[in-house]
Amino acid sequence: MGLCTAAVRLHPRFGEAEVNRAASTAAIDAAAAAGARLVVLPELCSSGYCIATEAEADSACEPLDGPTVAAWTAAARRHDLVIVGGLAERDGAGQRRNSAVVIDAAGLQATYRKVHLWGIEKRWFVAGDELPPVVSTSVGRLGIGICYDLWFPELCRSLADRGAELLVFPSNLTDDPPITVRDHVYTAVARAEAHRNRTAIVVADRCGTERGATWTGAAIIIDATGALIGAPLHDDDRPELVIADLPTPGQRETAWGDANDVVGDRRPDLFSV
Amino acid sequence: MGLCTAAVRLHPRFGEAEVNRAASTAAIDAAAAAGARLVVLPELCSSGYCIATEAEADSACEPLDGPTVAAWTAAARRHDLVIVGGLAERDGAGQRRNSAVVIDAAGLQATYRKVHLWGIEKRWFVAGDELPPVVSTSVGRLGIGICYDLWFPELCRSLADRGAELLVFPSNLTDDPPITVRDHVYTAVARAEAHRNRTAIVVADRCGTERGATWTGAAIIIDATGALIGAPLHDDDRPELVIADLPTPGQRETAWGDANDVVGDRRPDLFSV
Repeated sequence: MGLCTAAVRLHPRFGEAEVNRAASTAAIDAAAAAGARLVVLPELCSSGYCIATEAEADSACEPLDGPTVAAWTAAARRHDLVIVGGLAERDGAGQRRNSAVVIDAAGLQATYRKVHLWGIEKRWFVAGDELPPVVSTSVGRLGIGICYDLWFPELCRSLADRGAELLVFPSNLTDDPPITVRDHVYTAVARAEAHRNRTAIVVADRCGTERGATWTGAAIIIDATGALIGAPLHDDDRPELVIADLPTPGQRETAWGDANDVVGDRRPDLFSV
Repeated sequence: MGLCTAAVRLHPRFGEAEVNRAASTAAIDAAAAAGARLVVLPELCSSGYCIATEAEADSACEPLDGPTVAAWTAAARRHDLVIVGGLAERDGAGQRRNSAVVIDAAGLQATYRKVHLWGIEKRWFVAGDELPPVVSTSVGRLGIGICYDLWFPELCRSLADRGAELLVFPSNLTDDPPITVRDHVYTAVARAEAHRNRTAIVVADRCGTERGATWTGAAIIIDATGALIGAPLHDDDRPELVIADLPTPGQRETAWGDANDVVGDRRPDLFSV
């Protein structure tokens, strides 16, 4: 039996945190009903994305003991599952962060603060200054990144080298160009990372137009061979619950055939790796 | 006007170097007739791949002043174009190498000796100990790799950081799993590298069964956005000339929108890059 995994495509409403939290917990409930033991939510899914003023940035953020982590913790307890989701965080030092949290029935297990900020995020958030975490959970060792982090292969490699069995990316993937999820270069990037690192990857992307911005909606589940095993059935712009059974995560197998090993074959004598 | 580019899918016959050379020069002639100014041939395309004995390995190899480079130089002169192709090389020190050569009307411009060897190559060839080259040609600055090198993102990054405008990969891509080129994870890997490095990529893969081994046949042309603009029309196992017009290579544009830069956004404080 594999790991029943949910990648949730949501349409957050800008500034409507309560509505968005309710949508996220409803999605978690639905994923649990479908048997999911890991539920991945998009980046910034309680606040929405298109912050335009300092005041909006401030009101988007909440602390880790705030209502979103509380709601997700309650949901994780209700269903005894693991949740990874993104929110705008006000950290202990008062800084605004674009963060992802890992939550299970015992509560908040880890927080990751995005280290590669995209677009207007640079204006409203402070980039993380710590490595993305690898978190031991009941569904395996999860390596956490957020969206644009996928564009830096050293990040996935770092997670895998530190023992991650499954990479999880809450995301808001800009819909540029606007093509289908299956053919999108973002999906190709995620498949490449999965395949080359020998780690499954789950990406949860938002949908919906917000202040003129649109997203790819790439809620996708990719196994450790790089095969796309879960993707939205609909390429329209509506929320969708994508469910797939991943092979149970285990220590990654970096050997490839009799003669090769994707770690052992690296050439640190020639390249920074 | 763009750069008319040919990715050649050939079926080398094991040990039949003359037949294979003739097939490669016929393909170059056909590519030239179609307007190609850059022709990319597969890895080890004069010798075939499945070397089984020391004697076969020795007879597979030829020096850089041997018949294959001579034939390709003659073809490059005939059509005034640039050829990148793979051959089994006997180097100046007598070592066997899995090499790629860059040839134009002025002759041999560069040789690359594969640094990440795959499978039985480890038995029959000595891995290169120099960085893959970036070669200034009439069709732009070409960065050269071979097949399994694509699995190491630091190699493409190194080429791009050293000014490559177009990455070229003679390949023999194992057909595992045997799925179509368009959906293959190998194509995803190449698209990811193109997109993240902002450099077009051309892969020329072989086809045909050889001693029980099969290949993907992924002769593909990908632009610097990661879009697949050239791929075999037929997913059968026959030779094919894939032609596409790449935008004229120019210095890569690493800026992405107003706020981002895929080089400048790296975090060397956190990762080896």
